[in-house]
Amino acid sequence: MDEINLGVTCDMHVHVRDGAMCELVTPTIREGGISVVYIMPNLQPPVTTLERAIEYKQKLQKLAPETTFLMSFYLCKDLSPELIHEAARKDAIQGVKCYPAGVTTNSSAGVDPNDFSDFYPIFRAMEEENLILNLHGEKPSVGEEGNDIHVLNAEESFLPALRKLHADFPNLKIILEHCTTAAAIETVRDINKNVAQPADIRVAATITAHHLYLTIDDWAGNPINFCKPVAKLPKDKRALVAAAISGEPYFFFGSDSAPHPLCNKARHVGVCAGVYSQSLAIPYVAEIFDTQDSLDKLKCFVSDFGLSFYGVKKSDLKSLDEVILFRKEQHVPETIGDGSDIVIAPFKAGDTLKWSTKWAK
Amino acid sequence: MDEINLGVTCDMHVHVRDGAMCELVTPTIREGGISVVYIMPNLQPPVTTLERAIEYKQKLQKLAPETTFLMSFYLCKDLSPELIHEAARKDAIQGVKCYPAGVTTNSSAGVDPNDFSDFYPIFRAMEEENLILNLHGEKPSVGEEGNDIHVLNAEESFLPALRKLHADFPNLKIILEHCTTAAAIETVRDINKNVAQPADIRVAATITAHHLYLTIDDWAGNPINFCKPVAKLPKDKRALVAAAISGEPYFFFGSDSAPHPLCNKARHVGVCAGVYSQSLAIPYVAEIFDTQDSLDKLKCFVSDFGLSFYGVKKSDLKSLDEVILFRKEQHVPETIGDGSDIVIAPFKAGDTLKWSTKWAK
Repeated sequence: MDEINLGVTCDMHVHVRDGAMCELVTPTIREGGISVVYIMPNLQPPVTTLERAIEYKQKLQKLAPETTFLMSFYLCKDLSPELIHEAARKDAIQGVKCYPAGVTTNSSAGVDPNDFSDFYPIFRAMEEENLILNLHGEKPSVGEEGNDIHVLNAEESFLPALRKLHADFPNLKIILEHCTTAAAIETVRDINKNVAQPADIRVAATITAHHLYLTIDDWAGNPINFCKPVAKLPKDKRALVAAAISGEPYFFFGSDSAPHPLCNKARHVGVCAGVYSQSLAIPYVAEIFDTQDSLDKLKCFVSDFGLSFYGVKKSDLKSLDEVILFRKEQHVPETIGDGSDIVIAPFKAGDTLKWSTKWAK
Repeated sequence: MDEINLGVTCDMHVHVRDGAMCELVTPTIREGGISVVYIMPNLQPPVTTLERAIEYKQKLQKLAPETTFLMSFYLCKDLSPELIHEAARKDAIQGVKCYPAGVTTNSSAGVDPNDFSDFYPIFRAMEEENLILNLHGEKPSVGEEGNDIHVLNAEESFLPALRKLHADFPNLKIILEHCTTAAAIETVRDINKNVAQPADIRVAATITAHHLYLTIDDWAGNPINFCKPVAKLPKDKRALVAAAISGEPYFFFGSDSAPHPLCNKARHVGVCAGVYSQSLAIPYVAEIFDTQDSLDKLKCFVSDFGLSFYGVKKSDLKSLDEVILFRKEQHVPETIGDGSDIVIAPFKAGDTLKWSTKWAK
């Protein structure tokens, strides 16, 4: 198989930031072979108003007219059920992102994942509006005493909170974002064990491109690969790859492409968490599926399952162009944005990938 | 207790490198409150001849006339039993350092820890000469298939090899260097459970200053704290602190101070492994003992136990000066060596420590 039509692709977890960075990376969504993106709201300040969401979307649309943008709010006490209803009615957002306070980039305004009850009125409104709750599923690190939480067990420690949310809001669509552990995969699979058809799925998980490649050894000493949640152990990576190629419709692609200026990655202290993979999103994923002899499952993972869970309709699309994956080597540049104010080191900088993408009108 | 005489102190695991770096850091041994050091042989090329060991020691002695240097060979196929006997007879070395190939800085010439049998003639000669075998106790990382070794379990995976070496050479003095896990502490404790007196100890472990502070969360995103073996989980750190303050004579101080130019730490790929702690070695350790209300056990850890295990005699010492620890805050500089060709970021750069050291003639 040397050429595959992936149809209208989607990446359901994308950071395009603001300012000069936004101008640099937003056009790379399409370069990476992606049609539809779900945009993260962790700007500074975070996106928490209707006006902000609409304005941000307009700005992105101008930068990438053929890309379809799905937008989100940042879960915090500034939101109200009334705002959720209004935003849904105006189709301004498709979901709300929940960041546990302090776990990753611009998450200081986030919530305490030990107790979501303050947000139950929000979740109720979201459930009524069929909006999606996107969870950064990590407990914040706490050390020293007994029940330690650290970067390695932070996700697994969060899973009971996921189950409780699903139990309390059985019709709320929830995504465990950028999951990194075998435990998370097993939990999402278990929650879905009695689901008869894709339309009944209420809890899904996104998987990034980089977590299909990385383990702890890859980010130890290589800040380019440092992200939150951190890549875990080999057994976890194997579970993620197996889930991605499984054809189970509750696992789909969300790159969590999270660009930072190179100067914030090449530091001896305070390295920013995030891997930038947008400009080659589909080729990165295709290479893993190829290695697993599972390219026939790629379209489900990068298109069908995500579009279905989000309920994206043909009429929502800014472009009906389809993505063609074809076998052609390409070099991952050491940096991108060299002519601009900002330079980014992309995932697998300097490596060669086996696949490329083009657009079919 | 505001002032403690620590006597003649020792740091039994020190990297002072070569060239300009060596000139910068060798004098900081004494600044850090250390009298006697055991010097690592992982230069490029490694120290594997009598001439090299003697020449290196002379160079160091010139840079720090009052410091007592104990020297080592780098275990590799260039060594022979005859060389070991000769080096011991001439008192040129006190031990031989074993690096598993590829696990840390300049370890590419190291050995395969899955099979030490090629080196058994060397170990036999060392046992006869009462030389010490210093083990970097990690299995090299191997991924993908079944029996995964990664940076987190690399040390625990090595422990059976430690037990086997001790079983095969019951009189050989062995040190598990810079141990980082509760499992390692338990193993060394278990091996010593029937030891009646300090002179009978054959297997000991060194503990660094930085591993008394750090866990995985501290080096995730902070290359300044990245070293091999990597700092592990909170439970492991607690076990290390408990061992250090325990008064058990088979646990003693070895800083594994491993300086790298800042430009090799502040990188987005290929960060060098190593924490530089030499210039404040004793204050770093004292602060932990103070927090644990165990300053009365500090002298054992940083002086008595190490000197005893290595059999250092008064006549070996270049200086009989004693180290006085006293309660006086000091600031850890952001960098050291600012006037020289090389700049290093020291451990806990920018922090304040509660203790200082001075020398009593």
